[in-house]
Amino acid sequence: MALEAFNLYPDFNVLRLSHVELGVTDLARSKAFYADTLGLQVTDEDGEHIYLRAMEERGHHCVILTKSAQPEVYALSFKVFSEADLDKGAAYFRDLDYPVEWVVRPYQGRTFRTRDNSGIPLEFYFKMDRLAPIHQKYALYHGVKPLRIDHFNCFSTDVDASVSFYNKLGFRTTEYTEDEASGRLWAAWMHRKGGVHDIAFTCGRGPRLHHTAFWVPTPLNIIDLLDLMATTGYVANIERGPGRHGISNAFFLYILDPDGHRIEIYCSDYQTVDPDNEPIRWDLKDPQRQTLWGAPAPRSWFEHGSVFAGSAVGEPALTASPIIAP
Amino acid sequence: MALEAFNLYPDFNVLRLSHVELGVTDLARSKAFYADTLGLQVTDEDGEHIYLRAMEERGHHCVILTKSAQPEVYALSFKVFSEADLDKGAAYFRDLDYPVEWVVRPYQGRTFRTRDNSGIPLEFYFKMDRLAPIHQKYALYHGVKPLRIDHFNCFSTDVDASVSFYNKLGFRTTEYTEDEASGRLWAAWMHRKGGVHDIAFTCGRGPRLHHTAFWVPTPLNIIDLLDLMATTGYVANIERGPGRHGISNAFFLYILDPDGHRIEIYCSDYQTVDPDNEPIRWDLKDPQRQTLWGAPAPRSWFEHGSVFAGSAVGEPALTASPIIAP
Amino acid sequence: MALEAFNLYPDFNVLRLSHVELGVTDLARSKAFYADTLGLQVTDEDGEHIYLRAMEERGHHCVILTKSAQPEVYALSFKVFSEADLDKGAAYFRDLDYPVEWVVRPYQGRTFRTRDNSGIPLEFYFKMDRLAPIHQKYALYHGVKPLRIDHFNCFSTDVDASVSFYNKLGFRTTEYTEDEASGRLWAAWMHRKGGVHDIAFTCGRGPRLHHTAFWVPTPLNIIDLLDLMATTGYVANIERGPGRHGISNAFFLYILDPDGHRIEIYCSDYQTVDPDNEPIRWDLKDPQRQTLWGAPAPRSWFEHGSVFAGSAVGEPALTASPIIAP
Amino acid sequence: MALEAFNLYPDFNVLRLSHVELGVTDLARSKAFYADTLGLQVTDEDGEHIYLRAMEERGHHCVILTKSAQPEVYALSFKVFSEADLDKGAAYFRDLDYPVEWVVRPYQGRTFRTRDNSGIPLEFYFKMDRLAPIHQKYALYHGVKPLRIDHFNCFSTDVDASVSFYNKLGFRTTEYTEDEASGRLWAAWMHRKGGVHDIAFTCGRGPRLHHTAFWVPTPLNIIDLLDLMATTGYVANIERGPGRHGISNAFFLYILDPDGHRIEIYCSDYQTVDPDNEPIRWDLKDPQRQTLWGAPAPRSWFEHGSVFAGSAVGEPALTASPIIAP
Repeated sequence: MALEAFNLYPDFNVLRLSHVELGVTDLARSKAFYADTLGLQVTDEDGEHIYLRAMEERGHHCVILTKSAQPEVYALSFKVFSEADLDKGAAYFRDLDYPVEWVVRPYQGRTFRTRDNSGIPLEFYFKMDRLAPIHQKYALYHGVKPLRIDHFNCFSTDVDASVSFYNKLGFRTTEYTEDEASGRLWAAWMHRKGGVHDIAFTCGRGPRLHHTAFWVPTPLNIIDLLDLMATTGYVANIERGPGRHGISNAFFLYILDPDGHRIEIYCSDYQTVDPDNEPIRWDLKDPQRQTLWGAPAPRSWFEHGSVFAGSAVGEPALTASPIIAP
Repeated sequence: MALEAFNLYPDFNVLRLSHVELGVTDLARSKAFYADTLGLQVTDEDGEHIYLRAMEERGHHCVILTKSAQPEVYALSFKVFSEADLDKGAAYFRDLDYPVEWVVRPYQGRTFRTRDNSGIPLEFYFKMDRLAPIHQKYALYHGVKPLRIDHFNCFSTDVDASVSFYNKLGFRTTEYTEDEASGRLWAAWMHRKGGVHDIAFTCGRGPRLHHTAFWVPTPLNIIDLLDLMATTGYVANIERGPGRHGISNAFFLYILDPDGHRIEIYCSDYQTVDPDNEPIRWDLKDPQRQTLWGAPAPRSWFEHGSVFAGSAVGEPALTASPIIAP
Repeated sequence: MALEAFNLYPDFNVLRLSHVELGVTDLARSKAFYADTLGLQVTDEDGEHIYLRAMEERGHHCVILTKSAQPEVYALSFKVFSEADLDKGAAYFRDLDYPVEWVVRPYQGRTFRTRDNSGIPLEFYFKMDRLAPIHQKYALYHGVKPLRIDHFNCFSTDVDASVSFYNKLGFRTTEYTEDEASGRLWAAWMHRKGGVHDIAFTCGRGPRLHHTAFWVPTPLNIIDLLDLMATTGYVANIERGPGRHGISNAFFLYILDPDGHRIEIYCSDYQTVDPDNEPIRWDLKDPQRQTLWGAPAPRSWFEHGSVFAGSAVGEPALTASPIIAP
Repeated sequence: MALEAFNLYPDFNVLRLSHVELGVTDLARSKAFYADTLGLQVTDEDGEHIYLRAMEERGHHCVILTKSAQPEVYALSFKVFSEADLDKGAAYFRDLDYPVEWVVRPYQGRTFRTRDNSGIPLEFYFKMDRLAPIHQKYALYHGVKPLRIDHFNCFSTDVDASVSFYNKLGFRTTEYTEDEASGRLWAAWMHRKGGVHDIAFTCGRGPRLHHTAFWVPTPLNIIDLLDLMATTGYVANIERGPGRHGISNAFFLYILDPDGHRIEIYCSDYQTVDPDNEPIRWDLKDPQRQTLWGAPAPRSWFEHGSVFAGSAVGEPALTASPIIAP
């Protein structure tokens, strides 16, 4: 399949990914992980929710932890450019017969909830309470010094279909993996905000959330987090890395939160604001695609993911296999 | 003066700053500086010009060095979103009675040349020859490992007027310095591409180019460049830094090329894609504005700049003084 | 003067510098600086003293803060190889008619106190309480992540005499600055433990303690400290740097504690265990000696120091001038 | 077994490890690896040998590559304190009935060759040609920016016996792994020069050289090397890492040269000059011993090593198993 062209002038302007709402089974345990260990800042909390932001963010939250009976994901949220875009977005989904529900979300302005082609729950808003900057309050920095939420990565049973859906919303593919045998997409990285991605899709049982990523200043912050986790009871939560991805060229680390939600710590991708930036193609058989330095990913990395609340999980369309650590 | 609102829906879509054309008196000497020392990659050269790009750029050039009788600057260039935007841009300037001239620029598609309110020569294009990616050709990285051009900074005799001009083009102010006595702007940082700035203005004899900045991966690359310059005959070309700016929060170094054109090496500002991101105000009397760590800038930093070819230099409107090293 | 040879087989074996006892006027204020900001670990404290160690040290203390009416320094302390060396050391000083006093020091074994040629109070011991390792307790790391005490630097009125005194004790000069006009030493760096120095001397009003230095992992830790100090009320305590010294090749930062005692944060010198390692000579007129990158040191750096309790301060023998920031 | 005490006053003073002579099958191919990729400096070469030094070393060589029919190791070399120590050393080995042969080695003074208890060929010298410093010639730095040789690591069939041999020479154990079942040593790290080790031993088929290590400034240099090797044809030469060892607390990378000789790139261990520094004990069953962050080493890391020319390889005394990646 030729990579589909993205919509240069989509019906509404999605600015960027904004936040994720994760269902967690023990708020205190999750707070120890996200706030005390990763270093996200708590902006509000009660018996049901903890709201967190990263150090350079002025919006109220990039993560919402919600008390839940089992680990699951409630929504991936995106910020749109203006209130007019929000209404155009709601109309867009309604015209395509997707469910559109206006919901009330604390600290946010008008917000609607819908689903993507594969059943991933999406929320869109244009306005969130904005807090005073803390990026120069260096006494608050700790853990991995997370600066901002960077992207979502999801398992999709049909990556071609997922890419087509987000292309129509104006998401542009920056890099992709093709299964040469079938000519179909194995994985794709798609952006709105000018980096390698706001959201990516990988072939697998889906829809499921593979991970949520946070941007940090340098690889040394990732090494600091590894040292900290390894000596504070989190060594088993380290899943993969550190390493450099072939795709995206990012320096990465993958860790699991206490409920098994996967978090990527990430730095050093590249700027992609040019609409004529050529997508980079990778072959599914190229091991440097996964890790530039050659080390294969562990099996869990290809198999484990978080379910979206209320979305049934299906089998992938492709049966090709990535390179897995023996 | 209240900070003027920027134009949410400008007549044409400027993507980002693109490149600078610098007049230099000795091409070989400048090549030793930009290519051998800084580590920019030569993409073409002849007896009159050297074209350079940074490591993650796929466009043909971010710097053009042009043989010249004296040091001067020929144009600041910007890339627009589409060919339609280019034509709308030309119409916009023509409607305001600015000179608009269609020019032929090697490796670029249709390009027009005009001037801004203060006389700075500007060029706009929508398409440039795109080269194969080299960001993963690590054997090519050397010097400071420059990843991309980041911004221009100009002296303006009337920063309020400059900001107003670029606001209309959709540039949004991220941070600014106010002279409390007069209520006027002393300096402003304005972006299109989602960082702290594509262009900034500081009060001074103008119009002149204060500096062109390049983005590098980490502060350690800046330290490497300092070590290299200090031991290869360039110690006198180190003007200011390393340090962290209060404004922008960037880690910086200022150096002078063999003709005195100032280059900033820069990393770690923050993402500004939200249109409701609040501009941060700084007081002219706050020394941490310049350097968060307190060290004042040398006098040359406030006085020296590069003239634009064909633009007369005038005196600044404000007479307030920044904090200067004694 | 030709640089004097050091004593290959001194009377007693001095292992390394060990700790400094600083008189401070407000223990709580000093604790906020040394423990909360720099990140040294408190190993004991009462109303009169605070004992501190750095992260990789297993000895009980590398700094003792002692409540004092005015800022002053009580002793520079050194660890010797064995108890036999301690007794030989006491005999050595007694034979030369230096005062030798056996003193009781908490957490240390037998300890004697004497003075050097210039009146600097010195203490020697062979055994100190050893604490459990904490270098892999990464949750304790904060501030600049100090790993170990590295060296002392003192003003001396006669650097030739100081060097001669420490040469006899087996200290070897690694680098030195010569005043070409007089042929005399302006400064010298002398080691026992295999780095560039355990103690250094610079020409000036003396004897006074110029600074005490701590070793940190990388230059990024120094940048972190600058950010922290600049935003927690310590911006005026930043005196010089960051930069790289020509001499020693170290990456440095100089800061002042609340009483004006100068602290250097330091990394990246080199290994000097070979007894035939040639001392490196620097010319007093070479500005890169001070800062490889060219920036001159501020005047305070040449003038300000901490007095040793009970030692009269005299004028320097040399009147040559180093390069000072204008 | 209780860890044996080391000899505080050995017969002769070994300063530090000095250099290794490696037999390689293709000098040009090895030069591309050691000089062009790692960044060691060639100090001499002819059709049979290449001599290399690291950036802060002033001795003529830390590696000798010798043209050979098959990959093998000719000697591990150590520098002693003085010529008197050299003669005392020769007498020491002769008294114990070890073979002692005076050999001529280019660029070195008098040198004798012997073997250790397990058959490892050792050479000792006191004087080597000293070259002008290059640690501030930053234009020469490239590759991983190797600063100095750091240590050897060898497979031993009987680690208790190896430790006992080197204890008598004054090597002190800083860390060790004990097989709890047998009470015997599985591995030990032993130093002379004040870091974690000059030489280490691990249980395995031996004697064989496990690796030779080089010290680099920061973990970022190791990341740079990985990026370079991964994109210049050396991806298959990357064996293990990057990671942090539990033992030694070092940040490490293991790579293989074109003949399979293993090289470690290493930084951030700690200072050990105190003779009363307590050895740190690790349990063979503790996986964080190998990698603090939990990732097990690949099987090759436990099995592959370089033979010493002329030394028969035997089976290890212990049959316990370390933790190996599945």
